[in-house]
Amino acid sequence: MSDRIMLKLGGSVITDKSGDCAIDRDRLSGIARDIARARKDGILIVHGAGSCGHPEAKRYHLDTGAAPGQAGGIAVTHHAVSALNAGVVAALRQEGIEAVGIHPLHAGYADGGRLVAFECRHLDQMLALGIVPVIHGDVVMDRSRGACIVSGDQLIRFLAGRLSLQRVGLATDVPGVLDRGMVVPVITPATIQTLQIGSSTHTDVTGGMRGKIAELLELAEAGIGSEIFHVSRIPDFLAGRDCNGTRIIT
Amino acid sequence: MSDRIMLKLGGSVITDKSGDCAIDRDRLSGIARDIARARKDGILIVHGAGSCGHPEAKRYHLDTGAAPGQAGGIAVTHHAVSALNAGVVAALRQEGIEAVGIHPLHAGYADGGRLVAFECRHLDQMLALGIVPVIHGDVVMDRSRGACIVSGDQLIRFLAGRLSLQRVGLATDVPGVLDRGMVVPVITPATIQTLQIGSSTHTDVTGGMRGKIAELLELAEAGIGSEIFHVSRIPDFLAGRDCNGTRIIT
Repeated sequence: MSDRIMLKLGGSVITDKSGDCAIDRDRLSGIARDIARARKDGILIVHGAGSCGHPEAKRYHLDTGAAPGQAGGIAVTHHAVSALNAGVVAALRQEGIEAVGIHPLHAGYADGGRLVAFECRHLDQMLALGIVPVIHGDVVMDRSRGACIVSGDQLIRFLAGRLSLQRVGLATDVPGVLDRGMVVPVITPATIQTLQIGSSTHTDVTGGMRGKIAELLELAEAGIGSEIFHVSRIPDFLAGRDCNGTRIIT
Repeated sequence: MSDRIMLKLGGSVITDKSGDCAIDRDRLSGIARDIARARKDGILIVHGAGSCGHPEAKRYHLDTGAAPGQAGGIAVTHHAVSALNAGVVAALRQEGIEAVGIHPLHAGYADGGRLVAFECRHLDQMLALGIVPVIHGDVVMDRSRGACIVSGDQLIRFLAGRLSLQRVGLATDVPGVLDRGMVVPVITPATIQTLQIGSSTHTDVTGGMRGKIAELLELAEAGIGSEIFHVSRIPDFLAGRDCNGTRIIT
């Protein structure tokens, strides 16, 4: 396939946020089957951390950085999200997808909590060879803070334009962005102010739904629209059909 | 500690090259204890692949590259060397060293079999925070070849100058570079031509001892001398004492 798409799997979709790194392997298997039925290459997958990493990041206060002598939380947090990444990669490979996990701690560098570098040429070459890179929210070394948390949504924002991805979809456990219980079909920089969007009730060091929308609005302003939809809609998204979710555009 | 050193653990030191990825955990534990007794930070550790990765790289012909449809060997080879890396990291952490594994497949990019990029700022920040990065010979995506093998020795060559490392030591299962059974005390660009150096008898897709010396001579020409010594000499190297090995200098 010549077009390239990015699919984000929300952390709360693939883990049970009530436990400590409880990977939902049955759901992951179903998602991997849905993806493999639609296409086996030309996809870059990003996933959140869910219950694997968020509790550790919070316990070690990585959302505020890391100083010498406080480095212990970096390895522990990275280990937790890497375990989830291995689970996602294994589920995809089980379905015949040539998935390879890539860790932002290894590939990226941040300053003030924002990515300033992430090697993309290897991702580009992997996509050209039929490999599906699987990237995840992670702890990343930070010039000014020592270390920081880079969410899956920030990764989408950083990578989508650099890798010439035509479509970006975010599979979540809700049917879209909800405003007073209803799915908001379209969000633009002009309409975001009028919405009442609740914050996530779970442990989330990355800004919850508001943080997600802010990243996606930046992406839209860079020319790449995206859509937030329910995980059951992945086959529709991959086939280019309407997902009845929330589109974030300019 | 303010000085920074690089220690390379040869693949044949930490694995049994006769088997398929047979990690020598007892020897690794002893090495980790030796390191921890001398210092717990200010070190960057690089290790070879030994029997974890070399057979896979050869089976999939990764020494000659990878084309679309041949990507399968990349994940398999990376998986093998990553398993060894996890073993090295675990042995070091067991001794109280804040070790974190970093994969060249994630952090680097090559062209024509040579690294052209490798994120170093995160390594620099890790060293500043007291973390010991543990890097290894790996498959790396390559602009012209699709993928290639980057040896631990090439990594030393690429990283030592960029990370301002003052001393570079390579622990091997021989007491140094041997010429007709004797350790050669010093090798320079002028003397290398006069030596009779055997090639490795094991499966090695990275050029054996000749390839190693070529990398280290390049490093010497960039102003950083190095020493090849027997693994039992690690305490001497870390303490700055003579290792009775082979020094590669200009």
